[in-house]
Amino acid sequence: MENVQNDISPARGTKYKKMVSINNDSQEDMNSIVVNNEEENLLASVRRRFLISNEKVETGSLNVLSAKYESLDYDTCENYLLLDEVRKKGYKFIVHKSIARWFVFLLIGMITALIACIIDISIEELSIIKYASLSKSVDKYVVEGKLYIPFGLWALYNTVPVLIGSLLVTYVEPIAAGSGIPQVKCYLNGVKIPRVVRVRTLVVKSIGVICSVVGGLAGGKEGPMIHSGAVVAAGISQGKSSTFDKDLNIFRYFREDHEKRDFVSGGAAAGVSAAFGAPVGGVLFSLEEGTSFWNQGLTWRTFFASVVSTFTLNIVLSAYHGVPGDLNYPGLLNLGKFDSFTYELFELPIFMVMGAMGGLFGALWNHINFKITVFRMRYIRPRWLKVIEACIVAAVSASAGFLMMFMLNDCKPLGQDPTKYPTQLYCQDGQYNVLASIWFQTPEASVRSLFHDPPNTHNALSLASFVSVYFLLAVWTFGLSTSNGLFIPTLLTGAAWGRLVSIGMYSILPKTLGHPGRYALIGAAAQLGGVVRMTISLTVIIMETTGNIAFALPLIITLIAAKWTGDFFNEGIYDTLIQLSGVPLLPWEPPPLVNNIYASEVMSHPVVTLKCVENVGHIVELLKLTSYNGFPVVDPPLTDQAEVTTYGRIRGLILRSQLIVMLKKKMFNEISDYWDNVTSSTFRNDYPRYPTIDKISISEEEKTYFVDLRPFMNPSPYTVLHSSSLPRTFRLFRALGLRHLPIVNDSNEVIGMVTRKDLARYRVWRHRGRMGVEELLVSK
Amino acid sequence: MENVQNDISPARGTKYKKMVSINNDSQEDMNSIVVNNEEENLLASVRRRFLISNEKVETGSLNVLSAKYESLDYDTCENYLLLDEVRKKGYKFIVHKSIARWFVFLLIGMITALIACIIDISIEELSIIKYASLSKSVDKYVVEGKLYIPFGLWALYNTVPVLIGSLLVTYVEPIAAGSGIPQVKCYLNGVKIPRVVRVRTLVVKSIGVICSVVGGLAGGKEGPMIHSGAVVAAGISQGKSSTFDKDLNIFRYFREDHEKRDFVSGGAAAGVSAAFGAPVGGVLFSLEEGTSFWNQGLTWRTFFASVVSTFTLNIVLSAYHGVPGDLNYPGLLNLGKFDSFTYELFELPIFMVMGAMGGLFGALWNHINFKITVFRMRYIRPRWLKVIEACIVAAVSASAGFLMMFMLNDCKPLGQDPTKYPTQLYCQDGQYNVLASIWFQTPEASVRSLFHDPPNTHNALSLASFVSVYFLLAVWTFGLSTSNGLFIPTLLTGAAWGRLVSIGMYSILPKTLGHPGRYALIGAAAQLGGVVRMTISLTVIIMETTGNIAFALPLIITLIAAKWTGDFFNEGIYDTLIQLSGVPLLPWEPPPLVNNIYASEVMSHPVVTLKCVENVGHIVELLKLTSYNGFPVVDPPLTDQAEVTTYGRIRGLILRSQLIVMLKKKMFNEISDYWDNVTSSTFRNDYPRYPTIDKISISEEEKTYFVDLRPFMNPSPYTVLHSSSLPRTFRLFRALGLRHLPIVNDSNEVIGMVTRKDLARYRVWRHRGRMGVEELLVSK
Repeated sequence: MENVQNDISPARGTKYKKMVSINNDSQEDMNSIVVNNEEENLLASVRRRFLISNEKVETGSLNVLSAKYESLDYDTCENYLLLDEVRKKGYKFIVHKSIARWFVFLLIGMITALIACIIDISIEELSIIKYASLSKSVDKYVVEGKLYIPFGLWALYNTVPVLIGSLLVTYVEPIAAGSGIPQVKCYLNGVKIPRVVRVRTLVVKSIGVICSVVGGLAGGKEGPMIHSGAVVAAGISQGKSSTFDKDLNIFRYFREDHEKRDFVSGGAAAGVSAAFGAPVGGVLFSLEEGTSFWNQGLTWRTFFASVVSTFTLNIVLSAYHGVPGDLNYPGLLNLGKFDSFTYELFELPIFMVMGAMGGLFGALWNHINFKITVFRMRYIRPRWLKVIEACIVAAVSASAGFLMMFMLNDCKPLGQDPTKYPTQLYCQDGQYNVLASIWFQTPEASVRSLFHDPPNTHNALSLASFVSVYFLLAVWTFGLSTSNGLFIPTLLTGAAWGRLVSIGMYSILPKTLGHPGRYALIGAAAQLGGVVRMTISLTVIIMETTGNIAFALPLIITLIAAKWTGDFFNEGIYDTLIQLSGVPLLPWEPPPLVNNIYASEVMSHPVVTLKCVENVGHIVELLKLTSYNGFPVVDPPLTDQAEVTTYGRIRGLILRSQLIVMLKKKMFNEISDYWDNVTSSTFRNDYPRYPTIDKISISEEEKTYFVDLRPFMNPSPYTVLHSSSLPRTFRLFRALGLRHLPIVNDSNEVIGMVTRKDLARYRVWRHRGRMGVEELLVSK
Repeated sequence: MENVQNDISPARGTKYKKMVSINNDSQEDMNSIVVNNEEENLLASVRRRFLISNEKVETGSLNVLSAKYESLDYDTCENYLLLDEVRKKGYKFIVHKSIARWFVFLLIGMITALIACIIDISIEELSIIKYASLSKSVDKYVVEGKLYIPFGLWALYNTVPVLIGSLLVTYVEPIAAGSGIPQVKCYLNGVKIPRVVRVRTLVVKSIGVICSVVGGLAGGKEGPMIHSGAVVAAGISQGKSSTFDKDLNIFRYFREDHEKRDFVSGGAAAGVSAAFGAPVGGVLFSLEEGTSFWNQGLTWRTFFASVVSTFTLNIVLSAYHGVPGDLNYPGLLNLGKFDSFTYELFELPIFMVMGAMGGLFGALWNHINFKITVFRMRYIRPRWLKVIEACIVAAVSASAGFLMMFMLNDCKPLGQDPTKYPTQLYCQDGQYNVLASIWFQTPEASVRSLFHDPPNTHNALSLASFVSVYFLLAVWTFGLSTSNGLFIPTLLTGAAWGRLVSIGMYSILPKTLGHPGRYALIGAAAQLGGVVRMTISLTVIIMETTGNIAFALPLIITLIAAKWTGDFFNEGIYDTLIQLSGVPLLPWEPPPLVNNIYASEVMSHPVVTLKCVENVGHIVELLKLTSYNGFPVVDPPLTDQAEVTTYGRIRGLILRSQLIVMLKKKMFNEISDYWDNVTSSTFRNDYPRYPTIDKISISEEEKTYFVDLRPFMNPSPYTVLHSSSLPRTFRLFRALGLRHLPIVNDSNEVIGMVTRKDLARYRVWRHRGRMGVEELLVSK
């Protein structure tokens, strides 16, 4: 998200004010919008629409919508060509498409899992080399008193991979930075984030995440896995790649926003499934984040992809770990077996309090990270500076770890701890340094230790210092120009303070308690819930990852408490980041108390309209002058009428991309045989990156020609009356996944247009018990 | 459902044919619908609309829609009163409502669970008495050779409770028959099933289910639990009960279809959660069956109710079983611990084949049950006959069990089997009769035995005969005029043949196999999947009930195979029943290949419209003459125009219920002060059972008065153009949960109306690889 935020120019914010005075019953107000279709006035009118956007916006404002994001179009254009295709290809084609669809979901699941395996195995192998060598080096040089050597080594081992990863991310594909979950969330919500589902992003992300985890950053590989799944889905389903400039000419019929978004939701689910071994959680994640209209068929296919993904991963990883066929590795995040975890009734209130603590810590985490992100947007703008910041964090991570194990001489007898590299450091023979064992492994392994280490493995002081240091490291790390997620570091922080709680509990109630790892698990869930605030899907993901349904209730109680506490202070970290970048995300519901705002106030106008049969030169001009993506096609009002009051009666809606294709293919009335080769696929071929109007050469003579838009336009776009309220308009737009919604007057004549930004502008503003509706500024 | 089916008059079926010839570009066809608003012609025109419905319909036809079902209205009427209410009550009211909503969901969860506990404990206690006495009696009289005594006792123990249950269901509340899942499914889909969520239904259902399970019918208590949850939700959320004629005057603001349906979906989820200990499965069930628009807030509350429900049940049942606080009883269906169940890679194909077998058996089951249901609809129509049938089935159940344990002398040494009442019968001392142990317990306990009994407990012959007998019993039982579900008998059948498969597998691969109960579990899942064909929710329910996530993959594979195999032959049993009763259920997606059918062909016309200010006498006449529930309010075309071609420009939509309230409260223009006491709640007070027009007394003088509909009507109903395709119309209707969708021409003038039946008429017709669209007959 970071690269996105930087594009908002730093300046002072202003509040967008709007006159609200529409008389619902009379149409006079509508009529005051005088249509001005003259070419010379068009540019001015377009500027007028974006007048507000020329005012300066404060960097880091949460009250800005960026105008540069476009929407996906979930609505199918049912034009003549589609009807023709349906009629010609018939039922066989539907069966063929349906089988192809299942096959693509199968591939998505398998390939997502294989990428997950590659990432996981690379990290595992490289980490073994790194930490074995470090552990040996510490034990060797501690005797000689040359501890600066292993420290230097550690700093080097951290910085070099992070440098590589950060260079890649910063210079090759900045959209690959971070966890990728906000981007996937936006995509599923219906916002086109440029380059987010491209192969290059996938490659950079995969290498980047290996580098950051091996580099010892406080980051995880789970978020990036979800993003990878989304990219895989988008890539496979389209049967072509712009990165490789390769078109396999398969699955051409899936080349539209609607189908692609369905596949991406399957890919994201497969990613979650691979990351956490949570197929059901994956489906719920996709649903929770993306789908506005629950479609049983899609859900069923998504579930299939998720199951295939976790199954493939399981087979490959089991083989890698030397137990082929044993199928004990359903996900990347392997937290061990929790079979023995149970709970007593009296512990539930304790878990609830821990949930509230998690909500508090999470809100604090989010606040600090928000401040850091705004700082980054303002001051860490040059690319080299971003790389340097990443390297500094890598070095600081090493130093913090080193200082801790050096200063806190927390020793335990060997044999009790399952760590791979028991480092002796200053401990006596037969003992090992507990903190070294936490630091000298991947964060994931540390989480596992905290969950499963027997009682009394850790002492309170080490844990407390670890929590504070790791909390700060994690909050600093997230948002760096590297690929890494926040699940693991958040879980680790939470597990550590959960373990701390268990030590406290043991001192009060020594007898009755079960395994202290249970508190670590609750702490981890609470912290994660407090940071991300996901609801059902997170609960199910944690349930599936731990594989212990009996422990579901404590987890649910904890997560509810964490969410409610956290929501009291601020929003989840993903939502905060999305708001910062000004993406016009549509919430689930229209804001409350806006029934008295009418579509006529929400809509944008003037609208650029086209006639059913339109002059080519005019179209070219329009496309050059405006940035609109959809144009209502109208019967213009008769010019001999005394007063022209509207844009004319609506006949259909045509998209910029369709116009571009028509111009490119010279589908002009004057060229008699153009019709022969035009089918639905003519329009799909260039999807999703249609040429810009500047790339299309139209001769002066051609500019005098005419095109007939009727066979290509959407002949019956959904529209709403100007007197519809904002909630009604919102529900229609959201439920059907629209991109353009023409607003008509009582005679079905176009008077305005509602797009995603017009609706996203109205946001609930909520702060500690008060609530209102604010209108956001749309920045250009 | 049965009582519903019987209402379709028995006769020969005819295929509804329709001329399809609409020219999309011209409006001439539209204009041919000449408006005829004269009172004397109205009745004729209404009759014309239902002309088709007077043709006779074959009983048991799947191609009939019954016109008697009404829709729920998920769309909020944003009239002046609502705006006024929102403005006056402001944000505080929203907060208040939101807190009340959470509180209601809490109550729903708790009360649903308590009802589940009552049912469960009653069944448990009564069953103990019954089977202990039977077992003792058999062992006593077998020595004396008087086996007819225990047999008579058994038949008596079966018949008496079934008689009570059946009398209650048949004579007191017939809608309480069966599992209730089809009814809940219809309600969530948006169809109003009369009396389905009333307290009387709940009482009859609860007692009925206790009677049928204690009576030894092959039926379970899980389906009824889901129905109970729905009733509880509807009852609590409305704060009043028509059965008790009691209005608590609380939660008045929840008295509308939209809110009520949300609560019912929470109640259904709580019911699933209580029945199976599956909170996540419950949420998914509600979503899969009901919600067209995924609403995060609602989902979150539904989840809350589910968790509360399973938690409450757990606490109460744990206390009842003498282990308070131990929380090992999350659901009614207690299948025991499956912790040790694992699987090998090579077993997956075997599971897949078993899934396919389940699909086959399930399809067969559905087919037989369908035939039986049609037979019942035709011949078992008098109520006393239904009661007698139920008693016969009860007696036959006893006889079948008795014959089996008598004829198959399957003995095993004591101590191996966990059954409560080891019956010796003809076995030697120290042995017990295995079949007696299966029959002398509730079916649920038998399922548990089949899952957990050690290898070699059962022999192939006993199992095979048990499977065939129980299969037939179950298929005969489902659809009786008693309250019972099909989950348990289906699981039991499946578990038995799964166990049979395991015996076969052991003889081939004696060494490598794990616990034979695994095959029983797979068989049970396969059979259930084959019968009900639910997808995601069923998978999750079984996962949660078994509490073993490691075994999720085999279950998923099995269920997928079962669904695909079964779908090849026929539909799931619930869907078949719903089709049989002619409920206009809307599927998830519009049927394929109907892009060339336009809204103008789908719509009903003539339409009865009203003017903005309308004569009271005219309204009364209209309401008496027609059965429509929604009337477009229009500006009628000027009469001095040469030709009147439409009903006039749409201004709004008003419901029958609103008109009734206006007439009842005398909101006439001539009564000057009527306005003072009118608020939104005036219209809510009579919800959901408004008086009929015959109950409203309007004097002759009042009939000359006028009413102004504008402040009360929905001023901006969603509409679609006549040229919209069927899929577009369908999506809008389905996604927004509409009840009335006016169809307008290019000038926004009403030309027709689409309701649920008009859309449900177009159904995919699918049979072994071929597919088409059929139009259904609408019966009156």
